[in-house]
Amino acid sequence: MMTPNAVEVIKAKRDGGRLSGEQIDWMVASYTSGAVADEQMAALAMAILLRGMDAEETARWTQAMIDSGDRLDLSGSGRPLADKHSTGGVGDKITLPLVPLVAACGAAVPQLSGRGLGHTGGTLDKLESIPGWRASLSEKEIREQLAEIGAVICATTPTLAPADRKLYALRDVTGTVESVPLIASSIMSKKLAEGTDALVLDVKVGSGAFMKTPEQAHQLATAMLDIAAAHGLRCAALITDMSAPLGRAVGNALEVAESVEVLRGGGPPDVVELTVRLAREMLALVGLVPPDGPDPAEVLASGAAYPVWREMITAQGGDPDAPLPVAGTVEPLLAERDGVFAGWDAYPVGVAAWLLGAGRARKEDAVDPAAGIRLLVDPGEPVAAGQPLLELHTDRPDALEAARAALAGAARFAEDSPATAGSPATERERTPLVLAALGTRT
Amino acid sequence: MMTPNAVEVIKAKRDGGRLSGEQIDWMVASYTSGAVADEQMAALAMAILLRGMDAEETARWTQAMIDSGDRLDLSGSGRPLADKHSTGGVGDKITLPLVPLVAACGAAVPQLSGRGLGHTGGTLDKLESIPGWRASLSEKEIREQLAEIGAVICATTPTLAPADRKLYALRDVTGTVESVPLIASSIMSKKLAEGTDALVLDVKVGSGAFMKTPEQAHQLATAMLDIAAAHGLRCAALITDMSAPLGRAVGNALEVAESVEVLRGGGPPDVVELTVRLAREMLALVGLVPPDGPDPAEVLASGAAYPVWREMITAQGGDPDAPLPVAGTVEPLLAERDGVFAGWDAYPVGVAAWLLGAGRARKEDAVDPAAGIRLLVDPGEPVAAGQPLLELHTDRPDALEAARAALAGAARFAEDSPATAGSPATERERTPLVLAALGTRT
Repeated sequence: MMTPNAVEVIKAKRDGGRLSGEQIDWMVASYTSGAVADEQMAALAMAILLRGMDAEETARWTQAMIDSGDRLDLSGSGRPLADKHSTGGVGDKITLPLVPLVAACGAAVPQLSGRGLGHTGGTLDKLESIPGWRASLSEKEIREQLAEIGAVICATTPTLAPADRKLYALRDVTGTVESVPLIASSIMSKKLAEGTDALVLDVKVGSGAFMKTPEQAHQLATAMLDIAAAHGLRCAALITDMSAPLGRAVGNALEVAESVEVLRGGGPPDVVELTVRLAREMLALVGLVPPDGPDPAEVLASGAAYPVWREMITAQGGDPDAPLPVAGTVEPLLAERDGVFAGWDAYPVGVAAWLLGAGRARKEDAVDPAAGIRLLVDPGEPVAAGQPLLELHTDRPDALEAARAALAGAARFAEDSPATAGSPATERERTPLVLAALGTRT
Repeated sequence: MMTPNAVEVIKAKRDGGRLSGEQIDWMVASYTSGAVADEQMAALAMAILLRGMDAEETARWTQAMIDSGDRLDLSGSGRPLADKHSTGGVGDKITLPLVPLVAACGAAVPQLSGRGLGHTGGTLDKLESIPGWRASLSEKEIREQLAEIGAVICATTPTLAPADRKLYALRDVTGTVESVPLIASSIMSKKLAEGTDALVLDVKVGSGAFMKTPEQAHQLATAMLDIAAAHGLRCAALITDMSAPLGRAVGNALEVAESVEVLRGGGPPDVVELTVRLAREMLALVGLVPPDGPDPAEVLASGAAYPVWREMITAQGGDPDAPLPVAGTVEPLLAERDGVFAGWDAYPVGVAAWLLGAGRARKEDAVDPAAGIRLLVDPGEPVAAGQPLLELHTDRPDALEAARAALAGAARFAEDSPATAGSPATERERTPLVLAALGTRT
């Protein structure tokens, strides 16, 4: 009767106590095997959400999730391994230009990625809009591609942290997603099991992000950096603004096209800025810094990362020259007034793109590769009433009305903000893209 | 996307909000039908445990549980219906003498009861030690027995508050039992669906009870009285001491034998006192009070309730004259010292009886009708080292060691308590049996 059991573990956390390492190991392993039932883990997840876990518990929880599956061995490429993780946002296609760029600068990037849910997009969904491209690679294929090209973006392998896969699906239906220690351990268990040498975290904050306030973003960044430190992983975190969409494209094929622009030396300045900044952080963690190492800003501007992109897409069956899917219906949203445009609120833009078909409401839904939004006006530009502000792309014309409704009030004008009255300041000019940099470079 | 769903309801409570009546109705009905999954209800139950529900939410939750099944119609017996509920304790056999006593005083008692779990005994388990007695009656049988005898103790019918049955089983395995609103609504949904005219609650407090502190007991009593008031049920509550076992017998057949002693006008004074006090409360709620109504103390002392007991047992197939099961092994526990005995700590006595076979660890376990403990010395009596203090009754001799270990330190001596130094005061003399009486006699 006195042996450990699920109810005792749940009660310990429920009553505000710390879980022992043995309790955490047993609970995660038993949940993975099915000996602990879904309803028991759901009750524990809610207790963790409301009571918290300290850094030591969270590191142990992460370790238990890693131990539920296999660790990859991606060494042997002859290059240092550097990876990044973004907590997700609207128009956040940064992984697409970043991975080839960092590879072009001499590191190897094993980017095991996920799909989108809700209003935020998923990297794999975006790449799947490229005809022929496949997300699933074996560990051997990943290793070979890293050695040959230095750049891989693919799905996580099935044996990587299976406890996390099971737990994430459970949290999704039980209102227990929004727990900092559970989010942090979910992200870090996969990155640690993947076996990267270094990791840069892009923790987004603002209306289009999961974390709405700088305090929440700092908490999450700190929790992940603590896990990295406990596991001896070189890690840094940037807190970056997600109050406005990144770039001018939101939606799968639209974002691939914009990423190719960036890889060819063009593209929107905010996408370029964040791509270069993240590349610098990743390269710094593995010692590839100027003057000895390359300057990623120069590499990106020169177009030298584009051939790496083409090789990476081709290696996974994709045709980098194939036309991308195009939506059957493209309609403009018109300005209702004159004024100096100050930017879009990220969340309604993400919701509108989702409604048009770019995202999924349930994990089993398919996404529409062509659906999404193209933003036509940059912050700081003057606009006239009746001028198109953005394009709605969709193959579901009956979704247009809901998308337009979601966008009501999403366009900001400089004149509306008392702080900027009489000034042509834009949203981006007022809010820096990178809000803070945190790091434990062990 | 904006229609109500389980995750939104869970998040509302998780974040400290109130649930609307519609949310509660939908959640309870959907859980009963299976549309809301066990893991979703488990997460909500944990959120309710940690965030609470106010009186209005709790009354609505209770109504939703009633509405998950059928209401009984037990009217037509020609007598007012009065019932009681005890929150459970060690040696708490009060229902056994109480039901025939109240019937003998002119009311009808529809006592739909449960089984024991953990260290507290269950009324049905106790009565099932009587050869032939059966717990399950149809609604028609209950109604007929109430009309003929005025006394029924039986299992709840399968269609009575099925949401409660399902939810209780879930809470039991998810560490979510200890929520005052969930406990209160569980108890009250069954009593309200049963359709009694009046209800007396015996809320126990102390080591042998579910509620360990007077504050917790008052909270629970108040929550139940609030539900009764919201539903227009005449209701009163006693807070009673459960720091020591009730009477001298703990275990199924042993408690039946003691109850028969009480019904024949004898028995331990604390069992008699509480039985009479609860009978008075029940009779007062339905207007059967002296000088017009009978005095239950006189009725019990006269043995006039005993024939009602015999009829009640016989009507449910039991033989009131059959010998009760006797344990194969009976061993004494000896006093280790001289002194004035001050009483037993209820919790270890309950645990020891449970270990000997009187209780069950899981709902599907069978109980041993003969197992239990007989207490041989009353508080206030002088004892000598080596004198038997109690008897351990079991058919599992290998459980004796654990039972003895559970009882270490459970015997209290007057000399140990500084407050009573130099005085022969006993535990019962210091702690009154009835600690408080609360009521909303609407």
